[in-house]
Amino acid sequence: MELQKETLSRRSLLIGAAAGGACMITPGLVHAQAAATAPALAAGDVVLFQGDSITDAGRNKDAADANNPGALAGGYAMMIASRLLGVHSGLRLQCYNRGISGNKVPDLDARWQADTIALKPRVLSILIGVNDMWHKLSGKYDGTVDQYEKGFAALLAKTVQAVPGVTLVICEPFVLRCGAVNETWFPEFDQRREAAKRVAELAGAIWVPFQSMFDAAITADTPPEYWAGDGVHPTMAGHALMAKTWLDTTGLG
Amino acid sequence: MELQKETLSRRSLLIGAAAGGACMITPGLVHAQAAATAPALAAGDVVLFQGDSITDAGRNKDAADANNPGALAGGYAMMIASRLLGVHSGLRLQCYNRGISGNKVPDLDARWQADTIALKPRVLSILIGVNDMWHKLSGKYDGTVDQYEKGFAALLAKTVQAVPGVTLVICEPFVLRCGAVNETWFPEFDQRREAAKRVAELAGAIWVPFQSMFDAAITADTPPEYWAGDGVHPTMAGHALMAKTWLDTTGLG
Repeated sequence: MELQKETLSRRSLLIGAAAGGACMITPGLVHAQAAATAPALAAGDVVLFQGDSITDAGRNKDAADANNPGALAGGYAMMIASRLLGVHSGLRLQCYNRGISGNKVPDLDARWQADTIALKPRVLSILIGVNDMWHKLSGKYDGTVDQYEKGFAALLAKTVQAVPGVTLVICEPFVLRCGAVNETWFPEFDQRREAAKRVAELAGAIWVPFQSMFDAAITADTPPEYWAGDGVHPTMAGHALMAKTWLDTTGLG
Repeated sequence: MELQKETLSRRSLLIGAAAGGACMITPGLVHAQAAATAPALAAGDVVLFQGDSITDAGRNKDAADANNPGALAGGYAMMIASRLLGVHSGLRLQCYNRGISGNKVPDLDARWQADTIALKPRVLSILIGVNDMWHKLSGKYDGTVDQYEKGFAALLAKTVQAVPGVTLVICEPFVLRCGAVNETWFPEFDQRREAAKRVAELAGAIWVPFQSMFDAAITADTPPEYWAGDGVHPTMAGHALMAKTWLDTTGLG
């Protein structure tokens, strides 16, 4: 049984790492998170990824069917979906990517009924916020942090009401300090991350801490550009790390 | 620590399942496999996927760089690569897909120096054999089982000599009884699977049992068509299951 022991030991280390090492220090906290982070999937459940270009990842928007590789594209959504389909192979899960490049919270709101509620997701993962800030910096938008927070909260409230039993997974918006990201983004981007976290907590959602994950992953050998060339759009290595952290945090794969 | 225990417990079950339940019955066997199935990856290691259309999966052949999403395409190679990059995020692994649709053993041999040996893989995964049979059935090829076995063995011997320290992962060729696959494939296809297994054993390779995996996955709710519409090319669910089994069998992710 040595193989199992070794594999399990490494796995437990990785879980600890994904939880920011919290389980090494405060086991009680991890236990408390467990109940909130491990929904049980059932046969035929829908898993839906919503967001902007990071989720979109160049997907084929003509393919609307579940588990379509081109529609799921080559980013974290595809990587998570393929892991879920492999781990829960008998459940016939239906995985969809409905991210659209350039989207902000009001853009999600405008297409929410058709692109989210109509799909009746069992698990709904949302990553939104970087364009709410980026488009403001480039003069294309004037939404405040408060508008982001209230709009995001209203979207989730509407979702929980329309889709009973949905498990919400809110992904922390993130940037890396390279490419298009400079000091003009701060401190407002940090305020928007904090707003997203409050929204997630208010809705009882699972929170996936992508910003702290990337911050911890930056080393001399793996600088910001290794994870996201322009500071916003992840490389394949960045998407892969996101998928790993999403799966560990939710406990689904 | 409840979360860890639960996750680990499920993980050990999955490892058991991937090993055909062997660890439940003969722990000694699993221990013996462990040494052979868990290479330690190091910084900058190359992971290469070779094969036919199942590996190719419509990849972009103009992109030659490592970890390129379009070059890895949307099949099991991409799913495994993304998992490896996520789990071993600090190692800067270099993952390549060099599968080419329609390839048989002699086709691999003809392009082996440029497409495999020159890349100096630390882990080399090969899935080859379905076209060696299919093209024979359609009258385009006349290779025998013995030629398949000898050609495959020679290819591996050449590889081990040219790439010291390479870990070979041989994937079992498989078909599902639907679509293009009918009784005319048997018993020769089974003989070719057995030949591939002998070749893997002779080379000290890790053996990934895709045929028994798919056979075990077929149920009333998930018939052969759910895993591979034409009996040869996996659906996304099929690729996802292959990736999961490959990772569990090698112990790499």
